[in-house]
Order: sequence, then structure tokens, then C-alpha cells
Amino acid sequence: MKPATVQKRIEGVLSPVITPFRKDYAPDSDRFVRHCKWLLRSGCAGLAVFGTNSEANSMSVEEKLELLDALVKGGVPAAALMPGTGHCALTDSVKMTREAVRMGCGGVLMLPPFYYKGVSDEGLFRNFAEVIERVGDERLRLYLYHIPPVSSVPITLGLIDQLLSRYPGVVAGIKDSSGEWPNTRAMLEQFKDRSFDVFAGSEVFLLDNMRAGGKGCITATGNVNPGPIDRVYRNWRGPEADQLQAGITATRKIVQKVPMIPALKAITAHFSNDPQWKTVRPPLFELTAEQERQVITELKAAGFTMPGL
Amino acid sequence: MKPATVQKRIEGVLSPVITPFRKDYAPDSDRFVRHCKWLLRSGCAGLAVFGTNSEANSMSVEEKLELLDALVKGGVPAAALMPGTGHCALTDSVKMTREAVRMGCGGVLMLPPFYYKGVSDEGLFRNFAEVIERVGDERLRLYLYHIPPVSSVPITLGLIDQLLSRYPGVVAGIKDSSGEWPNTRAMLEQFKDRSFDVFAGSEVFLLDNMRAGGKGCITATGNVNPGPIDRVYRNWRGPEADQLQAGITATRKIVQKVPMIPALKAITAHFSNDPQWKTVRPPLFELTAEQERQVITELKAAGFTMPGL
Repeated sequence: MKPATVQKRIEGVLSPVITPFRKDYAPDSDRFVRHCKWLLRSGCAGLAVFGTNSEANSMSVEEKLELLDALVKGGVPAAALMPGTGHCALTDSVKMTREAVRMGCGGVLMLPPFYYKGVSDEGLFRNFAEVIERVGDERLRLYLYHIPPVSSVPITLGLIDQLLSRYPGVVAGIKDSSGEWPNTRAMLEQFKDRSFDVFAGSEVFLLDNMRAGGKGCITATGNVNPGPIDRVYRNWRGPEADQLQAGITATRKIVQKVPMIPALKAITAHFSNDPQWKTVRPPLFELTAEQERQVITELKAAGFTMPGL
Repeated sequence: MKPATVQKRIEGVLSPVITPFRKDYAPDSDRFVRHCKWLLRSGCAGLAVFGTNSEANSMSVEEKLELLDALVKGGVPAAALMPGTGHCALTDSVKMTREAVRMGCGGVLMLPPFYYKGVSDEGLFRNFAEVIERVGDERLRLYLYHIPPVSSVPITLGLIDQLLSRYPGVVAGIKDSSGEWPNTRAMLEQFKDRSFDVFAGSEVFLLDNMRAGGKGCITATGNVNPGPIDRVYRNWRGPEADQLQAGITATRKIVQKVPMIPALKAITAHFSNDPQWKTVRPPLFELTAEQERQVITELKAAGFTMPGL
């Protein structure tokens, strides 16, 4: 393995960045770089590009590598990037993870292979271990991605324990998108002395997560509401923490009344006055005009803005 | 679109061919070509390479294209091939489908994009339509792949109707791996006059499927038991059909007592005296010694063989 370098781990609010597409569904690297820079200016400590909300699995490995390259060439600091690199195919996961490490990314957020259901922890361990061994670079910071409502393949506490025992320092944390706070809390308790950074998968749990020893959140709504979410992160010990949390939870609840990914794109399109942002790749579908009107109207009534977009 | 050519559609027994891997998990094209030729000699009318049982989603697009190329160069007739070409990423599905058509494959078997769950029929229609339009070749014969227990994304009767109306002749049929005979029967009834070829996803339903107007089966166990399954197909109108069906159903039941994919590989390894066949890619796992002993012992007791392997 290449020698480890001491690099501060990413903590705070990360956005699983939505991916802009052109009319022909081609990824739009210019809009992508611009949006990533706005996010970093507006409260995000890091960018979990190529997540569920990024429609990452709707893109080929080559398309994602081109976008990653555009980000770094466009001046986005690689240390702030935590790209999704987990695929169904072992060889795809290795290729993308290796490239992310080579570019100096602060971490990678790794889905388990998600085609086969009901697979064993041994099989999943073997998958992650193969990726780590083949990448063979101690700079790798691997964050596991637990999102059973979408992947249908959970990352169990037993699997985490096994991976941490074998690859301490490399296995660096998790994004828990189970939506179940008791699960997040169990991870925080069980691995609290093992340099395992737990990120809530929704800002709804941000304050709870910070109070229980977590490191922040990686959240869909971070795409449109990064400032207020970051204020909860920076003030979680303060007297206004609960009130700030109530505010971001209320915003989240408005957004998630309609399908999340097209909603984030419609909101971004509206507040940047750039309708091309609305395009999603199949199998997703844009919001209906009525859904769009509803979410924008409710957000405006709540005083929501996207300053500087 | 390029002009259509009149090519007889594949009917009968198809095997979703298991993919041999080397010790380092690299696909082994020599063993693959040999196994494919054995299958075609032994009863298979066609080869549904890159299916669920092929660990197709555990391989990159490049690895699959190399294997496809090796098959055709190795003398396997392209007209007998129905490769799986459906991916989560639209661009991957287009790339692989285009290549399959260019090589003259008899058809393609297409999974829906399977990362996002609960997507709309409109979104799935748009996915398949984009692939068909981008490939833009009337030689394309697209078979839909309905396997909700694994993909978690069903192909509904409404979606089939919509696709058949828009792309008659191109949308050529379906593999129904729902395991629910009433669903297969509903497809047969609803689309009986629309050149829509229904293949059962298991030989357990082969005789029922033929009697109700289906065209054969595409079945895991076709990898190891192609001859007897083909005999049911060729004799489905004969007096011995029920007895022949009972025989292949009994064999299937022995095999599926243990995990199917490693079982098919262990059986092939045993009867070809080639233990390298046992290797599966993560996240799958080989059978335990006990599972392997059990399935081989029971098969032998039932008189099972793999002649000519």
C-alpha cells in the first residue's frame, strides 16, 4: 500500500449533489461545477457527488469520471469530495474508487452491490475487502452507504464490525439513510471508540446525531438549503439549537411531500431561473406542473430562499 | 432506422448461462465458450447470456462485451444469443444493446433500471423507449425481463401494452421470472395476438406455458439439465408430456434447496471435474462443502447426468 497521509476528515453538512442534464440527458459539467461551488460557498463542508439524489446509478462509470475530472479541473477542492463509488460490479467499484483516491478525494461513499437481495454479510465483506485490497492505497477513506429503502441491501452492525476490525483507518464511517434513528444510535454507541464517523442521512436527525457523537449529515435537502442546515451543525451546542433544527425540519417536510429528486431539481431551476435544471434521467420523471407549483408556493410562504444562487 | 431483416425468432429452451471466473474473479472466456457450445449441443435453442444466473450485474459493460465478442469469434452463432443488456444507467443499456444488435444477436433480454424503487410506468416506458430510439435499428428484438423478486422493479401489463403499441415488432416478448403462473397466464391472454413471445422464467412452468400459447422457457437449471427440459418443449403435445414435466420439476426442486447460482456452478464443476467453475463473484458466495455434498448426492440418486460435458 502507498503510505498514509494525515488529512483531516470531512465533518459537517454534505450534499449528495444533484446532477444537471442537458435536453438529450447528457451530464452538464458546467452547471455541475457551478452548483458545487455554490454549495461549498453556502454551508456545505463536503460534496457527496454521485449519490442517490445525484442519479448516480443512472450514469455510466465513464460519465461519472468525466464529471469528477471537470470538478477538480474547475477548481473544486478534491479534499471536499466524497464521491459515490459503489456499484453492482466489483470491477466498476474498483475502477471508480481507485480514480477517486488518485485524484485526492477526501473520501468515497460506497453502496453495497445492490442487484442480488438477501446476500450474506460474508459476501458483502468480500466485496468491500476486494475493493480495498485492489485499490491498495492507505489514503482511501471509505464511508459505507446504508440505504435499505432504495438499495434493499442493508449494511449490518456485524458487517461494520468485521470491516473495522480488518481495515481500521480505511473504513472511516457511514451514511445512515435507513430513516431509523435507533439504528443510527446503535452505530454511534457500538463504534464510538473506533474512529467511525456517523453521518445522518437526513437533516431531520442532525441535532440528535451531533448530540450522540455523530459528525454531521449527508442530506438531499443540502442541495437547496445548505445554509440553515449548516447553522444547526455549527450551533448544535448552543441555546438556539432546537429552534434551528425545527426550522430545517419544517423545510424538509415541505420538500418531501413530492418526489424528492425531481423536487430538488425543480427548486434549483426555479430559484436560479434556469428551467434546464428540471431534467431527470429515466426511470425518474419530472414533477407535474401542479406538484411544482405546490412545493414552490409552500417554500416561498415559509420564507425559503437560495441566496447567491 | 436500418431496414428490418426477416429472422426467425428464438423459441424453445434458453439458458441464462453461468459465467466462469478465474481465481482472481476475471471472466474466463475459454470456459465460457466451451460451456455455451455444450449447451447448444445439449438442448438449448438459445443462450440468454448475462442474466441473473450469469452474475451479469457483477460485471462491467466492458467485461461483458469482451465475453460476447469471444463467443461470436469462438463460433457460437449470434442468432442464438439473447444477451442481457438492461442496466441502471441508460447509457450502459444503449451501449450494450447497440453492440448486441450490431453483432447480429437474435434478441436482447432487458432488465428495467433497478436502483430506484417505486418508479412510475411512465419513467420505465421512457427508459425503454430511449434505448430503442437510440439504438435505432429495426433488427432489434427486445425481450423484457420481469423478475421482481430480484430487481424489485416490476414490468406491468400496462407498461407492456404501452411498449407494444409504440414499438410493435421490436418489443418481441418477455421472460416472466415472477414465479407466479397467474401473471404469466395474464400476459399470454392479454397479448396473444400481438407477436409477443412469453417465456416462463422456470421450467417448472414450461408445460403450462406451452399449453397456454407460450414459446418456451429461460431457466437457470437450463445450465445443467438442458436435454430433459428440451424434451418437454419438443413433446409438449405428446402423451408423455406430464411425465416428462414431472421429471424436470423434480430435478429443479433438488437444485433449488441450496442457493441457485453457486449450486449451478458447483454442479458444473463436479460433472466436468473442473473445480475452478465453483468461483462466484462477490457479493455471492460459494456453497458450503455440506451444501455441495447434499445437492450432488441427491442429483446422483435421482439419476442426473450432464452427458457430453
